[in-house]
Amino acid sequence: MAAPGPPAGPHPTSPPPTGGARPGGRGVLQRMDKGRIRRIVAVGSGKGGVGKSSVTALLAAELRRRGRTVGILDADITGPSIPKLLGLTGPLTDRGEGIEPAATASGIPVVSSQFMVEDEQTPVIWRGPLVTRLITQFFGGVNWGALDYLLLDMPPGTSDVPLTVFQTIPIDGMVFVLTPQDLAALIVKKAMNMARDLHVPLLGVVENMAYLDCPHCHTRIAAFGPSRVGSVAEQYGIPVLARLPIAPPVSELADAGRLGEYAAPEIAALADAFERAVADVTQGTPTVL
Amino acid sequence: MAAPGPPAGPHPTSPPPTGGARPGGRGVLQRMDKGRIRRIVAVGSGKGGVGKSSVTALLAAELRRRGRTVGILDADITGPSIPKLLGLTGPLTDRGEGIEPAATASGIPVVSSQFMVEDEQTPVIWRGPLVTRLITQFFGGVNWGALDYLLLDMPPGTSDVPLTVFQTIPIDGMVFVLTPQDLAALIVKKAMNMARDLHVPLLGVVENMAYLDCPHCHTRIAAFGPSRVGSVAEQYGIPVLARLPIAPPVSELADAGRLGEYAAPEIAALADAFERAVADVTQGTPTVL
Repeated sequence: MAAPGPPAGPHPTSPPPTGGARPGGRGVLQRMDKGRIRRIVAVGSGKGGVGKSSVTALLAAELRRRGRTVGILDADITGPSIPKLLGLTGPLTDRGEGIEPAATASGIPVVSSQFMVEDEQTPVIWRGPLVTRLITQFFGGVNWGALDYLLLDMPPGTSDVPLTVFQTIPIDGMVFVLTPQDLAALIVKKAMNMARDLHVPLLGVVENMAYLDCPHCHTRIAAFGPSRVGSVAEQYGIPVLARLPIAPPVSELADAGRLGEYAAPEIAALADAFERAVADVTQGTPTVL
Repeated sequence: MAAPGPPAGPHPTSPPPTGGARPGGRGVLQRMDKGRIRRIVAVGSGKGGVGKSSVTALLAAELRRRGRTVGILDADITGPSIPKLLGLTGPLTDRGEGIEPAATASGIPVVSSQFMVEDEQTPVIWRGPLVTRLITQFFGGVNWGALDYLLLDMPPGTSDVPLTVFQTIPIDGMVFVLTPQDLAALIVKKAMNMARDLHVPLLGVVENMAYLDCPHCHTRIAAFGPSRVGSVAEQYGIPVLARLPIAPPVSELADAGRLGEYAAPEIAALADAFERAVADVTQGTPTVL
């Protein structure tokens, strides 16, 4: 890894940092080649456990099925989920020309801190500065190749990692995931406000765990309460990209590391809405930060 | 707040820090008065969204109902949930003699970063060092009074905050919350390994969202897959403290800021198991770190 240097990068129009030193040395950021990645989209929520990683993996797999080239940057350094969901293991390799990502059978390149520890139960115990350094390296130091979409699976919270991502990676927009709980709506709004403050376009919201159809009597159960995604989307003037149910097959496939195999009409609809939203937001704006 | 100083504190037998500077100045830590707090217990999971905050609030309320004095330190600085669940608002006050916590109607003192922002949708965008400073102040700089239990609602991840908590607060043990997903079991094990590495006693595990009883046909639905809490508990040689269902009334009360009113046999059983586990672990060891 390059030694820390002064803030640098290809984005002279970046908004000013809101606090702290700007992470990432010149060497790391100079490797970055956004030219071969068409669209960079963060998937986040502020809150943990709402299904950011599942939505990211399901969306990436669906986009791949329709012929797009898609990569996943697992930005949840201290709580990585993507490798488990997609059945990927490390280690990452670097033959001196940048990090080679792992890849799914369908050809989705993935980087994750999970690939850097000995076994999947080893915690990544790092303080913020190390975490932010790794994020910039995962973006600029990886041989991503040509991609239609790079999806960033964001960690919960509004601290170091989202700050670093927003300040140093030229993302085109952000998708927000919430669940029907009032608390989830509250926390996602914080994340949306943070993104807006940092000039990141809000692409839309996905309601996850929206309902559960009883497998026995087929009644629809509002397990976590009534839907709030409509009012959140309206408040911010952005589209609802999908309402995804609690689906036991999703849990089973996720547990088996085969979540990418889950295809369903609601996932296809999510991919449609996602591509529309990205096109809408990026129209005429080749690089937005 | 006191200026940062050299590492200091009342715990000469603390394990060595595993990385980074030890947060918290001498002034902050000298205020700390563990003498009036009998037991300090962290509630965490590594993973977000599994219900750490709900379990913390439900447990605190139940302990309070049986006459214990209980406080809650909301250590999830960038994703605070406790105030919303218990219907509490700020601001915190300090008349020069330390921070006065907010308190529930039943008399549970609470501190949270939520009380420090203008409205509940304002994000707390702070980098690690500020976050860790606040944690130590929330412990040592607050007039907690005499407490039987201080519960720490931990954030997800294994980065700054858990490191700070484990290194600077004399916690007696930690309760872990997971859901039936394989991924949740995986991530909770990381948090458990981190706690074990830092000599924090593991008190037990709580399985949340363990199942859902269909309100219509009353069939029990394994919404997130089969239970894994037994094998996790066995692997670490610790008790299962409770298996809590997805209960729509819990969501409703949480949304209304009245979660503390939820009383149920499984919550009483959780409190019983919790007090047993604390007694077992702390027997003959007045201060464990």
